[in-house]
Amino acid sequence: MRHFLTLNDFSKEEIIEILNLAIEIKKEAKDKNYKPYLKEQSLAMIFEKSSTRTRVSFDVGMYQLGGHAMFLSSNDIQIGRGEPIKDTARVISGMCDMAMLRVNRHETLVEFAKFSKIPVINGLSDKFHPVQLMADMLTMIECGLKVEEIKAAYVGDGNNMTHSWLMLASKLGFELRVATPKGYEADAKILAMAQENAKISGAKIIITNDIKEVISGANVVTTDTWVSMGQEAEKEKRIKEFAGFCVDSELMKLADKKAIFLHCLPAYRGYEVSEEVFEAHADEIFAEAENRLHAQKGVMVWLDKHR
Amino acid sequence: MRHFLTLNDFSKEEIIEILNLAIEIKKEAKDKNYKPYLKEQSLAMIFEKSSTRTRVSFDVGMYQLGGHAMFLSSNDIQIGRGEPIKDTARVISGMCDMAMLRVNRHETLVEFAKFSKIPVINGLSDKFHPVQLMADMLTMIECGLKVEEIKAAYVGDGNNMTHSWLMLASKLGFELRVATPKGYEADAKILAMAQENAKISGAKIIITNDIKEVISGANVVTTDTWVSMGQEAEKEKRIKEFAGFCVDSELMKLADKKAIFLHCLPAYRGYEVSEEVFEAHADEIFAEAENRLHAQKGVMVWLDKHR
Amino acid sequence: MRHFLTLNDFSKEEIIEILNLAIEIKKEAKDKNYKPYLKEQSLAMIFEKSSTRTRVSFDVGMYQLGGHAMFLSSNDIQIGRGEPIKDTARVISGMCDMAMLRVNRHETLVEFAKFSKIPVINGLSDKFHPVQLMADMLTMIECGLKVEEIKAAYVGDGNNMTHSWLMLASKLGFELRVATPKGYEADAKILAMAQENAKISGAKIIITNDIKEVISGANVVTTDTWVSMGQEAEKEKRIKEFAGFCVDSELMKLADKKAIFLHCLPAYRGYEVSEEVFEAHADEIFAEAENRLHAQKGVMVWLDKHR
Repeated sequence: MRHFLTLNDFSKEEIIEILNLAIEIKKEAKDKNYKPYLKEQSLAMIFEKSSTRTRVSFDVGMYQLGGHAMFLSSNDIQIGRGEPIKDTARVISGMCDMAMLRVNRHETLVEFAKFSKIPVINGLSDKFHPVQLMADMLTMIECGLKVEEIKAAYVGDGNNMTHSWLMLASKLGFELRVATPKGYEADAKILAMAQENAKISGAKIIITNDIKEVISGANVVTTDTWVSMGQEAEKEKRIKEFAGFCVDSELMKLADKKAIFLHCLPAYRGYEVSEEVFEAHADEIFAEAENRLHAQKGVMVWLDKHR
Repeated sequence: MRHFLTLNDFSKEEIIEILNLAIEIKKEAKDKNYKPYLKEQSLAMIFEKSSTRTRVSFDVGMYQLGGHAMFLSSNDIQIGRGEPIKDTARVISGMCDMAMLRVNRHETLVEFAKFSKIPVINGLSDKFHPVQLMADMLTMIECGLKVEEIKAAYVGDGNNMTHSWLMLASKLGFELRVATPKGYEADAKILAMAQENAKISGAKIIITNDIKEVISGANVVTTDTWVSMGQEAEKEKRIKEFAGFCVDSELMKLADKKAIFLHCLPAYRGYEVSEEVFEAHADEIFAEAENRLHAQKGVMVWLDKHR
Repeated sequence: MRHFLTLNDFSKEEIIEILNLAIEIKKEAKDKNYKPYLKEQSLAMIFEKSSTRTRVSFDVGMYQLGGHAMFLSSNDIQIGRGEPIKDTARVISGMCDMAMLRVNRHETLVEFAKFSKIPVINGLSDKFHPVQLMADMLTMIECGLKVEEIKAAYVGDGNNMTHSWLMLASKLGFELRVATPKGYEADAKILAMAQENAKISGAKIIITNDIKEVISGANVVTTDTWVSMGQEAEKEKRIKEFAGFCVDSELMKLADKKAIFLHCLPAYRGYEVSEEVFEAHADEIFAEAENRLHAQKGVMVWLDKHR
């Protein structure tokens, strides 16, 4: 049995296999030819943090796969009330067929998976957001980019999205340039993991504080909110220190003419991205959001095949 | 594609078409002959305000139509956390087949619908509650009232229920008498819309502050809570100013002998209605509540046919 | 039509009939042979108190039976907002096929059932937790215990779990020894009911404050949290007064060598049970949790057959 906690646990071949499965299932869905891949299966969706996209995409995805998803917020279940994760994992394992967790601490996921008898999916943790990156990769493919051609620029906070881009690029072997403000660099351990992966895949990883350098000539530009849920207290400080990191039309001029812009949402206009850039690239951004649905179907069906 | 935001957007013929569809689907349901009208479709139910009836009726309704509904409270999704409505609308459009919103401000619905690629249903706004009125009309029909015979008396607060009664009456062409306390009249713009509609339909609209006048001879009497969600602060003031507007047995004696009494619930006994009147008319009131289920099925199936 | 509010409303034969149904349906589920016993039916799940096990087990259970369950927390519906129970019961009755309530006061359940036209299930009240006891009985059977051989020791707080064990033992006719600290005895009225039942069934009921006495020779040992939801204020006081009531390895040595240990969860290690005892008996405890799913399917299918 396999879990889907971070792309670091997967080989290049496996990631491509999941993406191809997602592409196939998306095609079937577009033809309204929903096949019951996960017939009669139940997915427990446990949320310590709220989310529109994660909630809806897993719920609809499971339904369209012939199964059933349950939304369990930490308000509604005892995971938020001092029950050990290992007990919740064992209870859920006895009743459900798969579990997806959106957690504050990645360790919660690891602990849950350790005691789980069913496949566990990371729906977001403080460290990684692998299902988002599967949706992003699917979107890049649909935009006509071949893996070996990608020159992606991630600009902004060195957070779970940065880490996930590092994993995707270093596993698949494409060029990734990361620019963060000073003091907001990606986790050094995760960067080291990416650099290890890059030795095998041939990925080119550039880490800098210079936003112009990374955007210049990039064919994919992406960013994320400067203030994630739970960081509201340091909002003022962050806004000051992220000055110059707003992706606006001036900066986008440095990128490849056909560059796409991705955003995992929610987007805060005037902060990490300008309204103008956001709306100019709305087609890609909302295709990316929709691809959460399709990519995650690929992940779930793949995990079911490997149990 | 059509949305269901207010009855003002629908012709008399369309409203009757939806009602007939509801009647047909209700008959099938009573025979346990559930037909998969909305097979494999997903409905996003977004709630800024909580509700028993709206939640359960849309959820069960969608299920019995062969589809799937998701309850999204503003606590659980990012619509309550500063994400622009237009982004939520575009995300939901990419994953779901239909959306129902229960909102504080009608403008939220209008904005959502503007950016939505899927039909949007008003599950309640500060301005209108059209699905409730479809259920009410269905109940009046089942109680044996023909449209042209209806003399309806709405007494109480000039709120979204009043506005919706004004729309229903003025579109279908029946007599509606509205009595509110001074200062609690219906919105003047909406009243003007109703009076415009009445010119075409021949509806008779009476607006007054005299509760006895409107109940006298009415064959349908209805009211609504004096203190809607969010108005708790002015509760004391309102209770004082609504004195004399409690529908009790004395007042009901003025109505037609066979008059029915409707209430969209929840009902506050001793305020807008006496316990005695409420329980004497419980059959109609709970048939009306059940008709939310059937009427909304009609709305959803109609919208699906017109996409 | 029957409700499932307390085992006291059921005969020994009926309880066994439900258990046999649960065993049969569990076998089918283990063979992935899900039969649509409750096809197209909707279950309203109303929660005044949150819960992982009750939520997931009823939701998955209903789904595997071919039906549909809705999670309604008192935050989301108007039952928590002053709507009379009798109105909620009548509304839910008109839209759903079955209702499950997890309530603070048992009276809420009784009132709901009084006005309900659909079967009502107690998912936990301050007085009784009968679905848990059905799961516990199923687990004891699967552990190879015959009803007439059971010598069960319940130690700890004289709460709804104690009351439910009293009902199960006194109805089926097995030996139950209850040890509580002084001042935490079971409800005298419920004890009297059990003693009445015991006259018919031949059950042996022992009530004491001596934990060693009850565990000695018992082949089933069980306990429950000392501080239930809502009792957090008296936590310190309770911990002091429950000294000596922690089921640890020393105490378990007094029990039958093959004794099983059950816990309805969540478990607080170091309080009502030691980590060592808990983990030594984890297989039974998590089988018991899973049996909530199967036992409740038995209850729902039985209620459906008797409507």
